[in-house]
Amino acid sequence: MNTIVIAADRLRQGLEEALGRTGASAESVAAARRAMMHASLLGVDSHGARLVAHYCQVLASGRVNPTPTLSVRRTGPSTAMVDGDNGLGHLVAYRAVEVAVDLARESGIGAVGATRSSHFGAAGAYARVIAEAGLVGFATTNSDSVVALFGGATPFHGTNPLAFAAPVGAGRPWLLDMATSSIPLNRVLLYRSLGSDLPEGVAADAAGQPTREAEAATMLLPLGGPGFGFKGAALAGVATLFAALLTGSTLDPDFIPMVGTADMSTPRGMGHFVLALDPDRFGGRDAFAAGIGAYLAMLRASPAADGSAPVLAPGDREWAVEAERLANGIPLDPDTAAFLGFG
Amino acid sequence: MNTIVIAADRLRQGLEEALGRTGASAESVAAARRAMMHASLLGVDSHGARLVAHYCQVLASGRVNPTPTLSVRRTGPSTAMVDGDNGLGHLVAYRAVEVAVDLARESGIGAVGATRSSHFGAAGAYARVIAEAGLVGFATTNSDSVVALFGGATPFHGTNPLAFAAPVGAGRPWLLDMATSSIPLNRVLLYRSLGSDLPEGVAADAAGQPTREAEAATMLLPLGGPGFGFKGAALAGVATLFAALLTGSTLDPDFIPMVGTADMSTPRGMGHFVLALDPDRFGGRDAFAAGIGAYLAMLRASPAADGSAPVLAPGDREWAVEAERLANGIPLDPDTAAFLGFG
Repeated sequence: MNTIVIAADRLRQGLEEALGRTGASAESVAAARRAMMHASLLGVDSHGARLVAHYCQVLASGRVNPTPTLSVRRTGPSTAMVDGDNGLGHLVAYRAVEVAVDLARESGIGAVGATRSSHFGAAGAYARVIAEAGLVGFATTNSDSVVALFGGATPFHGTNPLAFAAPVGAGRPWLLDMATSSIPLNRVLLYRSLGSDLPEGVAADAAGQPTREAEAATMLLPLGGPGFGFKGAALAGVATLFAALLTGSTLDPDFIPMVGTADMSTPRGMGHFVLALDPDRFGGRDAFAAGIGAYLAMLRASPAADGSAPVLAPGDREWAVEAERLANGIPLDPDTAAFLGFG
Repeated sequence: MNTIVIAADRLRQGLEEALGRTGASAESVAAARRAMMHASLLGVDSHGARLVAHYCQVLASGRVNPTPTLSVRRTGPSTAMVDGDNGLGHLVAYRAVEVAVDLARESGIGAVGATRSSHFGAAGAYARVIAEAGLVGFATTNSDSVVALFGGATPFHGTNPLAFAAPVGAGRPWLLDMATSSIPLNRVLLYRSLGSDLPEGVAADAAGQPTREAEAATMLLPLGGPGFGFKGAALAGVATLFAALLTGSTLDPDFIPMVGTADMSTPRGMGHFVLALDPDRFGGRDAFAAGIGAYLAMLRASPAADGSAPVLAPGDREWAVEAERLANGIPLDPDTAAFLGFG
């Protein structure tokens, strides 16, 4: 596959132009572009610019409202709900984050549920903004069924991400953005096209039996694999608990699939959940800053089992990728490059 | 190993008498007994009655204050800190839960950090109480270093549990209580005494290399194992983030070890964190109840890969064990049985 490398500024501009041509509102375009640039810069390519053609399609076909009117309903000193009016998930989730940060600044904590939303890309894009505001952040969503339950024979949960982030003094945030499966579904497609075997314990065949054959794999296995996948499956349930059950939104098996369906015109009714906590209402901002500094210093100084691969904190790899890509450009797959006119 | 089976009431009485003889306050005794009974009834034997001799020892030797005066400092409409006065972790964590539930009833959410605490047993004991109050619960703690980082050659994080719970109408709560390692350390000891091989990818030798030899294993590997343990290691970091960094408490590598140290007189300065959320401030109590009912029905009706093992929701196994043990008694290891006078 010939990747094409594009400078970050040019990619940002290309995303803005492509989204703008759909008639989406300026704030919708800005939010989707921002979230895709987060993912593309940090190396989360599955959720970056690759999805722009999909977002343009669903904006044009009625699934996603290009000009939504979001509404915020405050339900207490620290809680709120955002109605996304079926707009782009990025817009809805960034709005939820704004509200959560405002609530946390005011009351010490902000917990915000979002409804009537759509695919929001990488969960880390939202947790990160909370950390950049000096707060501890959590963001999650659920999605359509592609991951087996532990011992299950059919896809049940989505890859349901959990993202946490925390401020680190003058440095980049501690940032965890993980699917609750071991790998994403498009990794299976990549192994298929490469003709190579999957890692052990990450996918199953149509009967729910673990398989390393990419061609035979029809669903993912939860984190922990055949031995300990009850933990990954339960963590997928945590995403469903916060994003769907707490907000009153769609359950994983009830979603219209993101892709591979003829229905691109019915809104998917997706829920999200974000949380922001102010260290000043707990052990205090100074103790937090000193603690996380000491923690990360100890972690990074910890000896590695393999001398060639240093021990990393969550986010270390991603921020390094960002620095490299800001300097050298962002690799794009040929289809996306052509879609954006970079062919 | 000859286990001795004791009726739940008799065990409860035995725990109360043993703890009472240390001079611990009545509320300390009641809290530790309650948390141990939770674990022993639900089959979390690593954190149940087995620990009573340890708790009696640390109450007698100065590490844990047998007559603490806890104090609660409210820091906002939805936040508080509990100072544990170096008392038993069970007492401190149940107090934190009480405060979080009160805050959530009042404001919609309650987030409570605890400091100057000690080992609190099973994290699920606390998340469960929040769910039994009709709220969504989260509880976590960090602990002393026994789990390698991903690619690390030395123990760094504790087994750092994450516990989540949610109310289920008239049924028992949805309940997840998981270590962020694949197995607990005492499972390695069990495999050693049985002379059998460990499962793949759960433990490492002194150089940090994965090993299946129980005798060679000196540390645990994070959930996800050699392939995807960066996720388990990051989840261990989530426990440290909430329980230690946010509260200003002890980092995993800085703890006086729970056992295997001569120092049983210095308080360990352990932190905890609990969160309670009221569905009524999000999608509403009725939508939540309907949603979780539908979710669990779909989950339990989902086909199993192996016809003999049904698909389970988090907590299903534990509540079934509780029913069985309430009917037939609780198995105790011989040392604990002898300590409690059941020999």
